[in-house]
Amino acid sequence: MSRFLHTRYAGLETYTPGEQPRDKQYIKLNTNESPYPPSPEVLAALGPGEVADLRLYSDPEGAGLREKLAGLYGVTPGQVFLSNGSDDILNFAFMAFGEKGAVFPSLTYSFYPVFANLHQVPYETVPLREDFSVDVAGLSGKGKLTVLANPNAPTGLALPLDQVEALVASNPGHVVVVDEAYVDFGAASAAALLGRYENLLVVMTYSKSRSMAGARLGFALGSRELIADLERLKYATNPYNVNRLTLRLGEAAVDSDPYFRANARRIMATRDKTARALREMGFRLPDSQANFLFVTHPRIDGARLYQKCRERGILIRHFSDPAIAQYNRVTIGAEEEMETFLTMVRDILREEGL
Amino acid sequence: MSRFLHTRYAGLETYTPGEQPRDKQYIKLNTNESPYPPSPEVLAALGPGEVADLRLYSDPEGAGLREKLAGLYGVTPGQVFLSNGSDDILNFAFMAFGEKGAVFPSLTYSFYPVFANLHQVPYETVPLREDFSVDVAGLSGKGKLTVLANPNAPTGLALPLDQVEALVASNPGHVVVVDEAYVDFGAASAAALLGRYENLLVVMTYSKSRSMAGARLGFALGSRELIADLERLKYATNPYNVNRLTLRLGEAAVDSDPYFRANARRIMATRDKTARALREMGFRLPDSQANFLFVTHPRIDGARLYQKCRERGILIRHFSDPAIAQYNRVTIGAEEEMETFLTMVRDILREEGL
Repeated sequence: MSRFLHTRYAGLETYTPGEQPRDKQYIKLNTNESPYPPSPEVLAALGPGEVADLRLYSDPEGAGLREKLAGLYGVTPGQVFLSNGSDDILNFAFMAFGEKGAVFPSLTYSFYPVFANLHQVPYETVPLREDFSVDVAGLSGKGKLTVLANPNAPTGLALPLDQVEALVASNPGHVVVVDEAYVDFGAASAAALLGRYENLLVVMTYSKSRSMAGARLGFALGSRELIADLERLKYATNPYNVNRLTLRLGEAAVDSDPYFRANARRIMATRDKTARALREMGFRLPDSQANFLFVTHPRIDGARLYQKCRERGILIRHFSDPAIAQYNRVTIGAEEEMETFLTMVRDILREEGL
Repeated sequence: MSRFLHTRYAGLETYTPGEQPRDKQYIKLNTNESPYPPSPEVLAALGPGEVADLRLYSDPEGAGLREKLAGLYGVTPGQVFLSNGSDDILNFAFMAFGEKGAVFPSLTYSFYPVFANLHQVPYETVPLREDFSVDVAGLSGKGKLTVLANPNAPTGLALPLDQVEALVASNPGHVVVVDEAYVDFGAASAAALLGRYENLLVVMTYSKSRSMAGARLGFALGSRELIADLERLKYATNPYNVNRLTLRLGEAAVDSDPYFRANARRIMATRDKTARALREMGFRLPDSQANFLFVTHPRIDGARLYQKCRERGILIRHFSDPAIAQYNRVTIGAEEEMETFLTMVRDILREEGL
């Protein structure tokens, strides 16, 4: 840090994105991207005319896209907030709603404590249960901003809707954020609860099931009042934070909604097949409802498995947190990529004499 | 606001972007966009392959673009910070460097006080001199974050480099931000001072001279230490804040640098011609070195002129601040657009009996 930096940020921890190596081509199973391209409608949405129009600012309200998303999720446009990826929304949520502190599970998206520290929001964490499931009772009624990733990362486990609802209902004086980055891979969305709970904020992203991680587009659904709060922060930091091309592509993606839902089903089928094969090799893993698996093997060290895969050209995600050092998170790629991965893991286990 | 919002933001003022009406087609001279499209290289940079690759995250480091910009400005890549438009960078700068407060001119980019209030940075303003020029002596040596738009908005007046240097040198214990959104239309860039002043942060944008307002791309040049501070905040809020397509387009724009510099010269010529014509009609205006003119007429009310132009299909920017209520800011469009504007203003003055 420089001598000019605000002392408040002197010890600030940052989030570590998954590695994006440039030394060689890898099969990337480390950042939960989709193996499939965006829909044909999205691929066809940009021509030289759209690029030429970049001379003009984007619509800061994103009115066209908000209308389409509102239609898709059965809410009004005033209940939709658009932003530069869902991280951007989570950042605003900690800033806006964390005055009395925050609570989230001890093992979850590792960006939550970073946001909390950034905004001087004191937080507590609630341990997962033995089977890695979220302890809903432990999180309930805390009287502070509550953040639930559902499905959770990096475990992939999802809570059923009645338990999510119980959590939202337990905390009526504070916002409950349900981060549904991975919801399209088999879990039930809390969007069904909108209209009944004014403290519910559902955060979604185009980065996973919609195959648009590089477009930077996230959205939140909530009561008009919560959305207005987020808008206020956006208009005090960066009103034009979603670019023109992304707004256009985001609309084309809504228009081709069945395409990405079909892809999600393919990924779920590949996931379940991969999970079975890994269990047959002796791996243990929770029942993921996301586009990744969280795997450990009783006889090979987690960091060693990560390193062996990397040497052979496949990137998976290993975390430095000692509590999960024996685990790796493996993104579900295309069918053939997962076949390659499984063959490689079999080879590694054989070499290790297992 | 909702009952959930942090009380800190209860009275938060937001920035008001220029209007983007959708009721009819206007000649838009209200948001300082370029009348010219991005370069042919930029228009050719995106094909279906780039859109298909949106399934992958962008490079959070933006390494390729940083290298190119570093080459263009004669600095190292570690001295370049990329972000989602220059507003995003200014926001980070107030957050990072405002611990002892901030100072800026009383009439300048109206987003500065919004950022300051958002981050609880107490600020003072220094009045412009009678001729609207920035009072460098008044701003100097304040011992706090100092923010200078050069050229200034909405006046268009620029300080010569020696005065900018004097300001930077007067405040060695605090950061001096020079916001050069409009620098390519005739002013001297403080980038020439980099390497001599570790407290200097030069903020630039692709939104004006590079015809890419809708792409959301800003960058800052500074000492390695200042850039590392900004990176730290970025990695604690939204590491992937510049999307893949924008990174690609940004590189193509650097590769076609002479194209946009030629456009800037055309805009400067149109500006000077428009200024002469307006002065002949009795308007008063400072000598702009930006892509807009800041105009007033002794015999027609500023709000009335704005309204009359709007009714006739031309949008100019009128500000609610009473100190400048008699002024309008007029973006320099294409030659023909400005001819249309001048004809319309002549008609309006005639109708008003002037």
